[in-house]
Amino acid sequence: MVPGSEIGLRVDQTLTQDATGTMVMLELEAMGLDRIRTELSVQYVDHNLLQTDEKNPDDHLFLLSAARRFGLWFSKAGNGVSHPVHQAHFGRPGATLIGSDSHTCAAGALGMLAIGVGGLEIAMAMAGQPLYVAMPEVWGVELTGELPDWVSAKDVVLEMLRRHGVSGGVGRIIEYHGEGLAQLTAMDRHVIANMGAELGATATVFPADDAVRDYLRAVGRGDEFTRLEADEGAEYDVTEHIDLSALEPLIAAPSSPGNVRPVAEVEDEDVFQVVVGSSANPGLRDFAAFAETLRGRQAHEAVSVDVNPTSREVLADLIAGGWLTDLVASGARIHQSGCLGCIGMGQAPASGRNSLRTMPRNFPGRSGTEEDSVWLCSPETAAAAALTGRITDPRTLTDSLGIPAPRPQLPETFARIEDMLQPPLPLEEAREVELVKGPNISSLPEFAPIDDDLRAPVILVMGDDVSTDEIMPAGSRVLPYRSNIPKISEFTFTRIDPDYPANAGKAKDSGGHVVVAGKNYGQGSSREHAVIAPRYLGLKAVIAVSFARIHWQNLANFGILALEFDDPEDHDRISAGDLVEIDGVHAALEAGTDLTARIGDREVAVHHRLSPRQVEMVLAGGRIPLAAREA
Amino acid sequence: MVPGSEIGLRVDQTLTQDATGTMVMLELEAMGLDRIRTELSVQYVDHNLLQTDEKNPDDHLFLLSAARRFGLWFSKAGNGVSHPVHQAHFGRPGATLIGSDSHTCAAGALGMLAIGVGGLEIAMAMAGQPLYVAMPEVWGVELTGELPDWVSAKDVVLEMLRRHGVSGGVGRIIEYHGEGLAQLTAMDRHVIANMGAELGATATVFPADDAVRDYLRAVGRGDEFTRLEADEGAEYDVTEHIDLSALEPLIAAPSSPGNVRPVAEVEDEDVFQVVVGSSANPGLRDFAAFAETLRGRQAHEAVSVDVNPTSREVLADLIAGGWLTDLVASGARIHQSGCLGCIGMGQAPASGRNSLRTMPRNFPGRSGTEEDSVWLCSPETAAAAALTGRITDPRTLTDSLGIPAPRPQLPETFARIEDMLQPPLPLEEAREVELVKGPNISSLPEFAPIDDDLRAPVILVMGDDVSTDEIMPAGSRVLPYRSNIPKISEFTFTRIDPDYPANAGKAKDSGGHVVVAGKNYGQGSSREHAVIAPRYLGLKAVIAVSFARIHWQNLANFGILALEFDDPEDHDRISAGDLVEIDGVHAALEAGTDLTARIGDREVAVHHRLSPRQVEMVLAGGRIPLAAREA
Repeated sequence: MVPGSEIGLRVDQTLTQDATGTMVMLELEAMGLDRIRTELSVQYVDHNLLQTDEKNPDDHLFLLSAARRFGLWFSKAGNGVSHPVHQAHFGRPGATLIGSDSHTCAAGALGMLAIGVGGLEIAMAMAGQPLYVAMPEVWGVELTGELPDWVSAKDVVLEMLRRHGVSGGVGRIIEYHGEGLAQLTAMDRHVIANMGAELGATATVFPADDAVRDYLRAVGRGDEFTRLEADEGAEYDVTEHIDLSALEPLIAAPSSPGNVRPVAEVEDEDVFQVVVGSSANPGLRDFAAFAETLRGRQAHEAVSVDVNPTSREVLADLIAGGWLTDLVASGARIHQSGCLGCIGMGQAPASGRNSLRTMPRNFPGRSGTEEDSVWLCSPETAAAAALTGRITDPRTLTDSLGIPAPRPQLPETFARIEDMLQPPLPLEEAREVELVKGPNISSLPEFAPIDDDLRAPVILVMGDDVSTDEIMPAGSRVLPYRSNIPKISEFTFTRIDPDYPANAGKAKDSGGHVVVAGKNYGQGSSREHAVIAPRYLGLKAVIAVSFARIHWQNLANFGILALEFDDPEDHDRISAGDLVEIDGVHAALEAGTDLTARIGDREVAVHHRLSPRQVEMVLAGGRIPLAAREA
Repeated sequence: MVPGSEIGLRVDQTLTQDATGTMVMLELEAMGLDRIRTELSVQYVDHNLLQTDEKNPDDHLFLLSAARRFGLWFSKAGNGVSHPVHQAHFGRPGATLIGSDSHTCAAGALGMLAIGVGGLEIAMAMAGQPLYVAMPEVWGVELTGELPDWVSAKDVVLEMLRRHGVSGGVGRIIEYHGEGLAQLTAMDRHVIANMGAELGATATVFPADDAVRDYLRAVGRGDEFTRLEADEGAEYDVTEHIDLSALEPLIAAPSSPGNVRPVAEVEDEDVFQVVVGSSANPGLRDFAAFAETLRGRQAHEAVSVDVNPTSREVLADLIAGGWLTDLVASGARIHQSGCLGCIGMGQAPASGRNSLRTMPRNFPGRSGTEEDSVWLCSPETAAAAALTGRITDPRTLTDSLGIPAPRPQLPETFARIEDMLQPPLPLEEAREVELVKGPNISSLPEFAPIDDDLRAPVILVMGDDVSTDEIMPAGSRVLPYRSNIPKISEFTFTRIDPDYPANAGKAKDSGGHVVVAGKNYGQGSSREHAVIAPRYLGLKAVIAVSFARIHWQNLANFGILALEFDDPEDHDRISAGDLVEIDGVHAALEAGTDLTARIGDREVAVHHRLSPRQVEMVLAGGRIPLAAREA
């Protein structure tokens, strides 16, 4: 278990959501799987909820049929966001969970080892294979002290992002420990574990302690609790300390989750919109704190207050506790349960106007608005802006408006509504189910193995921290094509270069193309469409300073060569139009040796970090052809 | 006051919604208006709520600024659907109301004379002009008896549609009277008056009787009640009788509101979706009846149950009465308050799957799904389908599931939340307001007067009952361009002929083009975009067997010649490509004489029904140039 070496993990549970799940189900179909082999797999519908035409509802029907056919649980559209629903119904200390959603890591809140991966990893896990990952370093973060008034869990993870930025967690598992944990409920921990994704971490882990026991009791599953804590005197590869009592309200400014500063330093910006919800603040407490801050007052006339209850259960508890009445009376727009604006599925702000959101990401344009200005913050900071119409340090509300810091009294047990979670069909019944494919659902394209002598032009040179939102946008215009690769490929990289699909098309017949990037390429979502679509357009290799973990694995899964510069400064010496020539790719990959690329008129030393298993995939044209060959 | 002759009506109140209102505000700007001259005008935001990009929220900001500038009330996004909100806050027996929404007629429930018109009529009324309409016939509908169990107000208006179809009310005001009224609350009457639009009626009127008094008391405005009833022994131009006790649950089958049949005759069709909401079933009673039918039971696993609370006030009452808890527990997706799926703004059904809706319209494709299958019904019939997953006569639920007919106990007073309704600014403050125009908001194009010698090809020949949804689609893809005529014109007639915009473009430089239609051309919405956009593309004249009222007026407002065949059979003798030649248009219009068109190789007698006032508009190129000339 040496950091950096490849390890295989047994997978107990998987989750897929609808934006990535259609592809996973098509992969299961392509593999000819009869019945999943995990302990438990759940297909959620939480992303593509708007239904502006038939594509999304057709996908929902397809997913229902696939869940029934292959033996998955199915969570209907409107039941809620996958991560908190999964935590409430299926989370179990010590179990492993992988999900084709980058925020799957939220389940670390219960002491699970939970990792976001590409869809194909899920399909393989369902087929019984282990998950292969590079062994991460373990980063121990000790929490001490108590959170001050108006400061909450979101500010803890924003403090981590303030200190370490969006790639600070790459190659690491973050393990929180220390006396400060006692004050954080399981749902508070969910907030922190969730945005471990924004730090680039492989996973985030909390101990399964009394807080987890209390949570499992509150959702009616106290018998599934197992205590699971770090050994006395455990040592960590990296150590960190946060004094909770020293924290203040923080906010991530546009347009990166790593762009964090104290709210007090950015006060008085006008606010157009406040959105509360998403897996980054999913608990009843977060909505109740927001509602209690607004109670008896009216939202500012210029602010659209959008509330997305995380799940039907949270909505039921908001009704029962009177909080929904407060929200409605204060002027909130109450939306259906799901991801919505978090994934650009509606709720776009006006051009250039500030939107404050309790969500995990604010990459440029992710909101659906081309020139957007999205800030990420806690429910307390969101409430302050809703009341004043400006970015406001919530700590000032007590003096200015006489509002006490919210300390909502939560019920001892949470609402539990199971009917929209449909259990797997028995095997014999499942075998009778036919997949329901609407006209927009197309099969997976087939791809050829990588060239031995690569000759292809660079058609795009990008900087650092390019996110999967820039490679393959989400949002209401693009997401409906998640089950249609030829169509969705037309959106590839268009946020960076509108001509990319056309340029890729020109290069396709003469051997494809290459793209070049800086550090942390492919951060953000787990979407494998950010790999399959450019692959469909002829992408052969990505040469970058470094890669984000999930995207790097996705590249290998679909047979694209991920190369890193030996000398990061070579990045700046490459221009679009340069021809890339690499000879003897097959032999170099097989021998594990480094490669030399001739780019333009220079020799550039590059290397890969592929394991022997991944080399096999790339040589085969991807993991599916490899699996087919091995079957 | 002879039926058919033009009369002028003083306008007390106006309402505009966001899909039509942006154009109205641009018209006010073009006219240089300083302050509206109506007693009361309200700008609602209820249509374009999805915000998939910046266009809709930019429009919301523009409308807010325009309301403040010109002295209107403003109802924020999320406050609710215009018609029921207007009824609750501003409805007053005896007042006149016009609205740039075809369902404005709903206000007849309170004894108002309420008429849906094109946006330009609203702009002119705000500028102090009367509304000119052809004096309608008055159609007295006598109601007797009492509604049976499981039959409600929606079934009354569906019975009218079953008897008379979608043009049965053209040129008429429908006046309901008789002892059967005693059982119908003001909100029940709203349901019936609302769908007078689907009958093609100019307006629907109910007496202001005890039911209206009770309603105004329940919304806290008892002092605004004035009793207003037909004179004893009043006579009607046309008479009708409905025995309420003989009614059964009815449903309008795809894809016309006039396609009505008994639910019992279409049972057992599988249902994919049930949607409850819209101005056609907006009252607390409608949601409560639906909720009580579902109470303690789970919606069928294959059905998406979508609930759109009409307003924040209805939502507050649903919470207070426990009904929202029932709905959430039964599996409903609770959406924000607004029109939503009624206008194709989300909630599209899967391809070819049945969707049952308590909405007023099911024209082809209006749902957003190309091949849709939308049925219109009462909340009771919707609830039965939600439970069984099939179209089901709700009367069978008592025997099959032991469910009693819902008779919800409504509160004596309804929730009243006024904060999201912003009152007009004082004049001096208003004059300081600048209009806020996002990048998608373009000015009104200018149009030339009609040709004296018209020479233009027919590029489209259509059948009967073409709706404005087919001329200019609504829905989430098109509605964001409502303030951008050049862009929205690209969608004109594409549902009927995808080549229309291209063909119009080809004919534009050589003198424009003509379209030909059958009966009831332009039924449905009041949207003037269905006139401005084809006008922008070069439409000079529409020759039809007959026209729907609002669309006919809109054509005149924007200087398009609306001609009717003397012999309806001539319609069938015209083909696309035929050249239309009409000489001496100006003189014929001025003299009020009929016209002869040479179409292809035949002489075709046509006439117009334009008043002298309308003739002036058409000769000037439309009502705005005429107003400019007169100013």
